[in-house]
Amino acid sequence: MSSYVWISHLVTQGVYGAYTLGVSGNVPFCIMKKDKPCPDVLCALLGTRHPIVQAGMVWCTGWELAAEVGKAGALGTLGAGSMYPEELKAEIQRLKAAWDGPFAVNVPLLYPDVEAHMETIAAAGVPVVFTSAGSPKKWTGFLKEAGATVIHVVSSAAFARKAEDAGVDAVVAEGFEAGGHNGREETTTMCLVPEVVDAVSIPVIAAGGLHDARSMLAALALGATGVQMGSRFVMTQENPAHAAFKQRIADAVAGETRLMLKDVTPVRLLRGPEGSFFDQVHHAEEEGADAQTLRELLGRGRAKRGMREGDLMEGELEIGQVSALLDDLPRAGQLVDQLVQEFKAFNTRQMAKGFFWKGLE
Amino acid sequence: MSSYVWISHLVTQGVYGAYTLGVSGNVPFCIMKKDKPCPDVLCALLGTRHPIVQAGMVWCTGWELAAEVGKAGALGTLGAGSMYPEELKAEIQRLKAAWDGPFAVNVPLLYPDVEAHMETIAAAGVPVVFTSAGSPKKWTGFLKEAGATVIHVVSSAAFARKAEDAGVDAVVAEGFEAGGHNGREETTTMCLVPEVVDAVSIPVIAAGGLHDARSMLAALALGATGVQMGSRFVMTQENPAHAAFKQRIADAVAGETRLMLKDVTPVRLLRGPEGSFFDQVHHAEEEGADAQTLRELLGRGRAKRGMREGDLMEGELEIGQVSALLDDLPRAGQLVDQLVQEFKAFNTRQMAKGFFWKGLE
Repeated sequence: MSSYVWISHLVTQGVYGAYTLGVSGNVPFCIMKKDKPCPDVLCALLGTRHPIVQAGMVWCTGWELAAEVGKAGALGTLGAGSMYPEELKAEIQRLKAAWDGPFAVNVPLLYPDVEAHMETIAAAGVPVVFTSAGSPKKWTGFLKEAGATVIHVVSSAAFARKAEDAGVDAVVAEGFEAGGHNGREETTTMCLVPEVVDAVSIPVIAAGGLHDARSMLAALALGATGVQMGSRFVMTQENPAHAAFKQRIADAVAGETRLMLKDVTPVRLLRGPEGSFFDQVHHAEEEGADAQTLRELLGRGRAKRGMREGDLMEGELEIGQVSALLDDLPRAGQLVDQLVQEFKAFNTRQMAKGFFWKGLE
Repeated sequence: MSSYVWISHLVTQGVYGAYTLGVSGNVPFCIMKKDKPCPDVLCALLGTRHPIVQAGMVWCTGWELAAEVGKAGALGTLGAGSMYPEELKAEIQRLKAAWDGPFAVNVPLLYPDVEAHMETIAAAGVPVVFTSAGSPKKWTGFLKEAGATVIHVVSSAAFARKAEDAGVDAVVAEGFEAGGHNGREETTTMCLVPEVVDAVSIPVIAAGGLHDARSMLAALALGATGVQMGSRFVMTQENPAHAAFKQRIADAVAGETRLMLKDVTPVRLLRGPEGSFFDQVHHAEEEGADAQTLRELLGRGRAKRGMREGDLMEGELEIGQVSALLDDLPRAGQLVDQLVQEFKAFNTRQMAKGFFWKGLE
């Protein structure tokens, strides 16, 4: 390492500013390239202390969770996808009464109440809006005029470019291992994040499989400027998910989640008891059921039934692969603190001894 | 960072030795845990300069590739799974004539010629053997008596523990995104590596989705002590894969590989032209075809036909998701050099500025 000479040169670029870092010594010139935005850029965009987002999951968010996450310096999010317009209004009001810092609302753009939600968001001056499952073209302008930071969730580099073209401020690159609704490409976080980072100039937030300081550092190594965690925040005390669902997650082992209903809308579900909805879908898909049959089997209201009402037999249990690794139930603020402290210690420890080997010398 | 006090304490453990690193300051005590083996431990085990393994893929390895990889300081591997016993013997002879350093042979334990391959390996004194697709119990003792380092490929923490119990020296944790034959759990590299690292004390080599310095650093952040790359080494000049297959990989975009034939043996394949074998399998599976039907459709010899003979229509094209990111065809030695140099520069750059943010201070 001592053989390196570092030349730092500041280049202002767009809103963010980007560093071009020259490296001499025995490092080939070709590896010099424009650096991607760093975590501080994302923190500035979100108004948070930490580049950590609690995902806006359906049925598994609420003002208490978002307030606790916000107070700990990360970004708490309300998932509007499972709220009626009046509910979202009430949740935002309660959240603002409990916490006067930044927070976000996640709006799946294909949901029926989108227009009403957008009016609520604009009227309430929601600082950050995550959009997903639909084209970012229609609402990005409206939201930005209302003063919001707009972030779109993508499952491919092609969608990321479209989102950037639509004027969003950042994207979430969400991999195959994530819980709930998911991309058809099945691209995992390890492959998706570098591809999206290379495709766009705006900050990229990694999601899918992230739950601790190690995976957070891995996501940053891949070029992300921050992380979004969903499953990890389902397993917190303030999360309104049903206790039976949380217990099922604690008991989950590897291989018990599966991306299902690909012919309808791909969604990662956790296995329930023998003969549960999960088994029924699995069986129907093995038999080659068509989209119509699957849609009828799905019916309505299963997500609420599983995640909020704790009906493990008939409900949908949306959770990521990382459920196999989750078995504690901290308070949300404690979780954020722990992530940051472990990151700090882990990263420092690695920097002290870990990433290098003799062959590099 | 200046508020930290580091206490390093050496604890000898088994063959490797492990550091226990204490951290004080504002970091909670609970994060103190035994460090995992570092890349130097793996390099010592493999006899290489770099903790990088070229995977022993069927139909896509050969003595020229392994020799070039070895000369560049990484570990080259012959994939015995697609070789007759006499071929493996001849390949090992040629490899030894071209390169007198360490190399490996990969043996899928369920293949018919396993016994003959094992005799060849013992007689030739092959220094490192990767075993996969079967129980490591039967052959680990034999191989270790023959003086080989034995490494087993796993797709879950449960298999990793079994491999450790069987006495292997290390495991490869290979995620869902990897090409070729793959686990039924569908656990991605981001979720699998930390789970395996937590489950065993032996070194863990990460595989699946790894292709550059970023993903290599991400794998090390997750706790791996090294990386195995397959698809990346298919795209090298010395690789005996057919030029038409390589060109197809260069043209591949996200979402064009799929884990298929799950009812027979799960394998990640790349889409061929309209109406190709890939489409036939996809269609059959959509229709709910049973294992017998799929086995008949698969028939015999498709892997060779696709990857070695370049028949994109009727052959199997085994490659990882990362094919979407590969479009150059370097020499294998040049690739290893570039990985190491980029890692060095990238890691140093990140250490200089990237992973930290103001909220950590």
